[in-house]
Amino acid sequence: MKKIVTMGEIMLRLSTPGHQRFVQAESFDVIYGGGEANVAVSLANYGLDPYFVSKLPDNPIGQSAINHLRKFGVNTDYVARGGERVGIYYLETGASMRASTVVYDRAHSSISEAVLEDFDFDAIFKDAEWFHFTGITPALGENGAKITEAALKAAKRHNVTVSVDLNYRKKLWTPEQAQKVMTGLMQYVDVCIGNEEDAEKVLGFKPGDSDVTKGELEIDAYKDIFKRMKETFGFKYVVTTLRESHSASDNGWSALIYNGEEFYQSKKYEIRIVDRVGGGDSFAGGLIYGLATSDDFKHALEFAVGASALKHTIFGDANLVTVAEVEALIQGDASGRVQR
Amino acid sequence: MKKIVTMGEIMLRLSTPGHQRFVQAESFDVIYGGGEANVAVSLANYGLDPYFVSKLPDNPIGQSAINHLRKFGVNTDYVARGGERVGIYYLETGASMRASTVVYDRAHSSISEAVLEDFDFDAIFKDAEWFHFTGITPALGENGAKITEAALKAAKRHNVTVSVDLNYRKKLWTPEQAQKVMTGLMQYVDVCIGNEEDAEKVLGFKPGDSDVTKGELEIDAYKDIFKRMKETFGFKYVVTTLRESHSASDNGWSALIYNGEEFYQSKKYEIRIVDRVGGGDSFAGGLIYGLATSDDFKHALEFAVGASALKHTIFGDANLVTVAEVEALIQGDASGRVQR
Amino acid sequence: MKKIVTMGEIMLRLSTPGHQRFVQAESFDVIYGGGEANVAVSLANYGLDPYFVSKLPDNPIGQSAINHLRKFGVNTDYVARGGERVGIYYLETGASMRASTVVYDRAHSSISEAVLEDFDFDAIFKDAEWFHFTGITPALGENGAKITEAALKAAKRHNVTVSVDLNYRKKLWTPEQAQKVMTGLMQYVDVCIGNEEDAEKVLGFKPGDSDVTKGELEIDAYKDIFKRMKETFGFKYVVTTLRESHSASDNGWSALIYNGEEFYQSKKYEIRIVDRVGGGDSFAGGLIYGLATSDDFKHALEFAVGASALKHTIFGDANLVTVAEVEALIQGDASGRVQR
Amino acid sequence: MKKIVTMGEIMLRLSTPGHQRFVQAESFDVIYGGGEANVAVSLANYGLDPYFVSKLPDNPIGQSAINHLRKFGVNTDYVARGGERVGIYYLETGASMRASTVVYDRAHSSISEAVLEDFDFDAIFKDAEWFHFTGITPALGENGAKITEAALKAAKRHNVTVSVDLNYRKKLWTPEQAQKVMTGLMQYVDVCIGNEEDAEKVLGFKPGDSDVTKGELEIDAYKDIFKRMKETFGFKYVVTTLRESHSASDNGWSALIYNGEEFYQSKKYEIRIVDRVGGGDSFAGGLIYGLATSDDFKHALEFAVGASALKHTIFGDANLVTVAEVEALIQGDASGRVQR
Amino acid sequence: MKKIVTMGEIMLRLSTPGHQRFVQAESFDVIYGGGEANVAVSLANYGLDPYFVSKLPDNPIGQSAINHLRKFGVNTDYVARGGERVGIYYLETGASMRASTVVYDRAHSSISEAVLEDFDFDAIFKDAEWFHFTGITPALGENGAKITEAALKAAKRHNVTVSVDLNYRKKLWTPEQAQKVMTGLMQYVDVCIGNEEDAEKVLGFKPGDSDVTKGELEIDAYKDIFKRMKETFGFKYVVTTLRESHSASDNGWSALIYNGEEFYQSKKYEIRIVDRVGGGDSFAGGLIYGLATSDDFKHALEFAVGASALKHTIFGDANLVTVAEVEALIQGDASGRVQR
Amino acid sequence: MKKIVTMGEIMLRLSTPGHQRFVQAESFDVIYGGGEANVAVSLANYGLDPYFVSKLPDNPIGQSAINHLRKFGVNTDYVARGGERVGIYYLETGASMRASTVVYDRAHSSISEAVLEDFDFDAIFKDAEWFHFTGITPALGENGAKITEAALKAAKRHNVTVSVDLNYRKKLWTPEQAQKVMTGLMQYVDVCIGNEEDAEKVLGFKPGDSDVTKGELEIDAYKDIFKRMKETFGFKYVVTTLRESHSASDNGWSALIYNGEEFYQSKKYEIRIVDRVGGGDSFAGGLIYGLATSDDFKHALEFAVGASALKHTIFGDANLVTVAEVEALIQGDASGRVQR
Repeated sequence: MKKIVTMGEIMLRLSTPGHQRFVQAESFDVIYGGGEANVAVSLANYGLDPYFVSKLPDNPIGQSAINHLRKFGVNTDYVARGGERVGIYYLETGASMRASTVVYDRAHSSISEAVLEDFDFDAIFKDAEWFHFTGITPALGENGAKITEAALKAAKRHNVTVSVDLNYRKKLWTPEQAQKVMTGLMQYVDVCIGNEEDAEKVLGFKPGDSDVTKGELEIDAYKDIFKRMKETFGFKYVVTTLRESHSASDNGWSALIYNGEEFYQSKKYEIRIVDRVGGGDSFAGGLIYGLATSDDFKHALEFAVGASALKHTIFGDANLVTVAEVEALIQGDASGRVQR
Repeated sequence: MKKIVTMGEIMLRLSTPGHQRFVQAESFDVIYGGGEANVAVSLANYGLDPYFVSKLPDNPIGQSAINHLRKFGVNTDYVARGGERVGIYYLETGASMRASTVVYDRAHSSISEAVLEDFDFDAIFKDAEWFHFTGITPALGENGAKITEAALKAAKRHNVTVSVDLNYRKKLWTPEQAQKVMTGLMQYVDVCIGNEEDAEKVLGFKPGDSDVTKGELEIDAYKDIFKRMKETFGFKYVVTTLRESHSASDNGWSALIYNGEEFYQSKKYEIRIVDRVGGGDSFAGGLIYGLATSDDFKHALEFAVGASALKHTIFGDANLVTVAEVEALIQGDASGRVQR
Repeated sequence: MKKIVTMGEIMLRLSTPGHQRFVQAESFDVIYGGGEANVAVSLANYGLDPYFVSKLPDNPIGQSAINHLRKFGVNTDYVARGGERVGIYYLETGASMRASTVVYDRAHSSISEAVLEDFDFDAIFKDAEWFHFTGITPALGENGAKITEAALKAAKRHNVTVSVDLNYRKKLWTPEQAQKVMTGLMQYVDVCIGNEEDAEKVLGFKPGDSDVTKGELEIDAYKDIFKRMKETFGFKYVVTTLRESHSASDNGWSALIYNGEEFYQSKKYEIRIVDRVGGGDSFAGGLIYGLATSDDFKHALEFAVGASALKHTIFGDANLVTVAEVEALIQGDASGRVQR
Repeated sequence: MKKIVTMGEIMLRLSTPGHQRFVQAESFDVIYGGGEANVAVSLANYGLDPYFVSKLPDNPIGQSAINHLRKFGVNTDYVARGGERVGIYYLETGASMRASTVVYDRAHSSISEAVLEDFDFDAIFKDAEWFHFTGITPALGENGAKITEAALKAAKRHNVTVSVDLNYRKKLWTPEQAQKVMTGLMQYVDVCIGNEEDAEKVLGFKPGDSDVTKGELEIDAYKDIFKRMKETFGFKYVVTTLRESHSASDNGWSALIYNGEEFYQSKKYEIRIVDRVGGGDSFAGGLIYGLATSDDFKHALEFAVGASALKHTIFGDANLVTVAEVEALIQGDASGRVQR
Repeated sequence: MKKIVTMGEIMLRLSTPGHQRFVQAESFDVIYGGGEANVAVSLANYGLDPYFVSKLPDNPIGQSAINHLRKFGVNTDYVARGGERVGIYYLETGASMRASTVVYDRAHSSISEAVLEDFDFDAIFKDAEWFHFTGITPALGENGAKITEAALKAAKRHNVTVSVDLNYRKKLWTPEQAQKVMTGLMQYVDVCIGNEEDAEKVLGFKPGDSDVTKGELEIDAYKDIFKRMKETFGFKYVVTTLRESHSASDNGWSALIYNGEEFYQSKKYEIRIVDRVGGGDSFAGGLIYGLATSDDFKHALEFAVGASALKHTIFGDANLVTVAEVEALIQGDASGRVQR
Repeated sequence: MKKIVTMGEIMLRLSTPGHQRFVQAESFDVIYGGGEANVAVSLANYGLDPYFVSKLPDNPIGQSAINHLRKFGVNTDYVARGGERVGIYYLETGASMRASTVVYDRAHSSISEAVLEDFDFDAIFKDAEWFHFTGITPALGENGAKITEAALKAAKRHNVTVSVDLNYRKKLWTPEQAQKVMTGLMQYVDVCIGNEEDAEKVLGFKPGDSDVTKGELEIDAYKDIFKRMKETFGFKYVVTTLRESHSASDNGWSALIYNGEEFYQSKKYEIRIVDRVGGGDSFAGGLIYGLATSDDFKHALEFAVGASALKHTIFGDANLVTVAEVEALIQGDASGRVQR
């Protein structure tokens, strides 16, 4: 099995049942998730051997996060224990024209205050084939940025392929801060995933005038940006998902990849959404699986889109589908007929 | 904060979980609601100062209804305590072509047997700016009609603006009974809300031949009726919602207002319904907020329609949205993208 | 009340709550159901007098299955007690492009190992007017086939009308096995329900080249097959449902009947699905009700389609609607407006 | 199977989950129960053939009550349909020194407004062996008293044994009203169940100075009263349960019977209470079973006490135990060891 | 109604359902509570007019805390809005010999970072009769200590009676830190509540050698300490609860008060525990009610003990009982018989 | 970390919520457990490195069982995949004098039909220190017995310490069958756990006349049997738990060990039971931990008894406690005071 390393924060997600508003909730559903952890769970379901690198407090809440990862087959040997708290995000799942709402309470989490000494990156990347990170970890603060850079250098020492999901989070840093940190890390990246907002805020590439809240997508603007990203940073692949947000209940979903020579746009799915959170992470997970197991980047993109379309029908942050299920969908059976 | 008075019945709603039929239910979800109480909750969420006038038994079920109102910021100082019972309605939430079903068990409730002496209307309307009632309270019986009339007279003594939601309920009275009582009360009303069924059954205005079960709406018929209503009763505004009932799961939703000079028809929303009950009440709440805080009646209508569209996505009788959320929707963001 | 006999297996359905995947489930919803039992529940709701014939173990799980049937008015006097276990099927309800998944664990159930001596068919069919069975019981094994044949012979002795739902189950037998058993039983059948897959696998009639996973329906192919089925077996009616599986969340739903002279295709419903399981059984239940209470086979078909459309909005295996509710729908009110 | 008739009110019980107070409840657990209906369910579980006589509204809530009874094997053919509503009682389950609280909302129920014409008592008592009623039905109002008397006369015409559970309810009538009605009915009674409060309030027999809230029991006082009851009314058996209420969580539980010659006091159980409601009804059910199937009145008493001790461990109003389970307990196995 | 002011932190309590361990929880029950807020809810239930002073973030979680307080009748006009987060505590409810476990995540909460400018204490204490605080608020940090001192000075300016619950929290500060701050505040206190651990850690009074984990209580040691506390700080009353912790499921519960002349020890209750959290707060609430409404300090103590005994049977942090319910208990009815 | 191997069946436990009877259940709580798997989970919680050996079907239910084990840190690399089904046991949790009831549906499970080729025992026992099995696996049938013997031989080849929990299951085999198989396996066993029923049924040692349903324990009888067991089979330790079953809610709990020279009886705990299932397994887990990490067999016994006492307070089959929690209990803190 291929050893894949992901690194980042795993948070406690507290979501109201059904479509309840926060003020109605007498209970919260408990999920442990985070961008990089969600990717790790995806990969475990596909039969790869993911290792998640993070730091969690030495208390039962931290342990519960670890148990969540172990349950789905993610190796947690490299999770440092200590620090103050597990970061939290509160989630209220919208419907129709009411958007889902996220309230973050992630400051002072163990991983955001972790230090280099918490991790032995040479051990971590020994025999690894792939490293995935996101723009969230460097945004957690100076420590996060340092750790990410150290991880990337170690990954390169061990000839590990590197992917990033730019994932701009406006509550964590400004575009100026983001660009200052992130542009310096791009030299280590082979596969760059990011939509136009990410490209602009994190890397400074102005898209065109497309406005994502309108549900319109401008492929041409993407092509232009992707070329410039490739030229500037030498990525092997530049990739983005294309979400058409009709409402909180219905989205169109497809993706675009550029290998430096060719643009390939995937099939599009119209999705009735069960749980939209983690949609992008499941895309990254599918893409990594596809690119790590074959040279067919178009198939990798279709796999990633199909996998993440399925994620939208699954409760929780993590995608819980098998390779066979994704393949059946992308081969054409989207009829939803009962599988007896 | 503006003191707004609403008066009516608050009932115990016992609804089956999810889309269960009554015979399947092993539990009922507990909500306390009623037309005028729901309006009060809306207004509290918008930062106004609503007072709810009613009567509830002096037992823990009555107390629970009061606590529900207090939780959302409604003042309950004018709720008389005593009488026999809290009225009940059982609700089964439909889906697709299966309609929601309501079984009423509201006879003999405390408010339906309340007497004039239960309320000190001069205290109630002191410093008040608005009074809202519906056609349900007079329909509860002779006492209800008397109390409503006394309230209306007191409201006028205190120069309070009055709105009514005609809300015809065929299980409570006949059109003949309704017209006999309600036409006499219209002289006190400034803002009249009612659809064509209400106009016909409660006030005796024959619409045209539009048939609401067909999901067709005939704006022209409304315009004719509205003019006649305005002429007959001297309303400042005549207003109706325009519901296109595609199915129990999907509705089109818009509204029409007439200020005696001009008709204005709102934007229309296509809604995936979570809970349709209280949709009309949330419209009234939004309209009162709009008209009580600005002279822009078109904006008030858009606010009311946007607010009530959002209500359809919220479990329970009451609308639980802020002014900011409604404004964001009516400014154009119906994409349902996650608010992080 | 008309005595109607159905015979078959009632299983314990263990379904994950909401749209959870199996690996997420901390609890299973408990439903007792099976093709023929579901038909019996439908008929009880329509005011007929259904008797369910089966075998269940003499333990509390078997008793729970009986209690489920009794609750809805099905007579269980002819359920033999004994044997090893209640058969189980695990269900995961899909959404959008993710299909529902069924995992069967039904081998060694009491009914699959029942013997002729468990049933007194002359008592069972005394005063009965109708007998309904499906292709599942003979597929349970040699005993099942023998019992079915004995039941059919007894039914004919008592001049009972017989209907079958072919219901091919590929996990229970091969087409060869199915055809060997089932073609011999068709001589006793008056009303044959089956879609093109059933016709081919169970009776050996090659449809055309229609592919049900594409959501396309080929009425002409059906007409051809129906004629041949009628000719070969002398059925009074040949019937099929026509499901257009847009996704796990949305289906088109209609049906086709052939009385040897005329083809009649029903109205089509577009359904938002709550629970698709038992859709076919509720169709059979509606059809039997229609044909057993009137000669108007077209109305019977519309009743069956309307009834089963409603079933898709009801949680569980069984349809829980009244004649009045079905009639209201097929008379044209599919607006889903609240019934107060 | 022995046909046993019980007659009375079946109510909707709305109980808060766990030990929640009413003001905390976001849902109510739904149970249908009532003194006489609970007895019927007990008897069905013991293999007798109970018929429940009552009246329920022709709506889905009334139907749900019927389905509850059918589920457990009670025949509902004699339940008239019509009237206004299903009576309700709200229940909050106490713990430790906090008592359970019941809020009644039963006025105007269908059975309380039923008339003689709703029931054909000669059909009802044809082939019946036993009739059980309680002091609650006559307390529902004049109609209830008339119907009860008519039933008793018919029962006697058909040589049916009659038992009564005196069951004084202070919210329904005063001792004066109770005595006026009930003493006249005692001539039809063979088996009289009632504790000292019942004996005093319903029949006018002053016990001694025992105070049931102190948890003390005075057997001697009971013996004196029983003798006088027997002398006055000619009962075959006089019976009472002996509850020692240590707290809402723990009770001592035994019983006393008098056959005119001999007093017999049962074994006592110390019970950890799960649900105390229906404890007395399950005692009556056990006693009827015992006396109807054997002449050993001491065993009948032990059976009744054991059965009702078990009831206290079962959620809901009704006792759900088999004869074998009761026998095992009264034979001495109260160890609670797992039955594998 | 008497205006009573309490000030402190209200936290989000996330507790596992039933007796689940943290690693088992798929959901958390949501309760908002804290020592001083719990006292306020008690007082509202007793008909007084409590105002809660605190700071909460301007987000939906902060709003939910406010709604919780309003629901139970607590005035929230003096709750400042702003800051970073709502403090959290995770709770796992033990059973038998397994203790309940609390994991705190309360650092950086809005109230812990509040400043003097957030509160207008002269407005707050205008017309107030009582002020209650605990040793927790000063322990939150330097700001907490300053705010508490300012509040106490203002309270004294307005002739408000002051009570304190010493409530030592070892995770918030050391005994040295506690004593340094708290001894300076005692001059403003009239009623001091604290057990021997509090007296030692917070005020420096060494009790004797009693060891609370042994479930033994040494009244004599208490008497000695109370006398010294009274002498040192001039308290009007010194009070402590006396908990005998037999297990996580069963506790003995009583209290001791000293008015400078006389010691009075209350009746003792043996409690089956439903939810032990907030037991001490409910005692303080009962004591304040008793002392604020009468001069009978012995009755006040009995009221406080009875009230808090009842709290142990109620889910959540807050006590939800009425004066009548407490009085019934302390008058002697602890039998737990159903209140119909 | 010490590698510990356990082998056996892991079943799907379907338990009714709370204390519901089977016929009441609308849902089942889902737990995966079995004697040997439960031991493995215990050991993982204590920081050892347990491997579970079994066979599970290659379907989502089998996968769910694996995920359960992984979640708690059990290595599942040696679980073969294939076969027909996951065995099931239905559980109804009793209370007071009502015993818990188990209905087994475990025939034809994958492990019961596994063959020698499914396991590579030399790989499995490489570097292992301990092997634990129970009398259940050999009872599953001829295959189970063969596989157990092969495992034992391999264990001995690898110098692995072996423990057995005799665990007689009367539904799986007769005493004759048990003795025939089990006595032959005892030569490989170092530590033998079994109560008097096991000793008699599995090994043929007649105890005295103690009757476990009476809650009486006869230590002397045990001593005699233990000596004979030691003599016959050369065990290093013979151990039994001593359960005093006061009721389904309350048990006394202690244990006895014999090392060939000395008998040691542990401290006794009186337990309020939350979930009694797995109590014996948690004892075995505690004992193995104790004996594998120290020579102090008395401490090992106290650890085992304390650990398993705690298990009785935890929902599910598996014990979820840490070494620190067990040590705190056995050091004397059974007060259940809140751990803040």
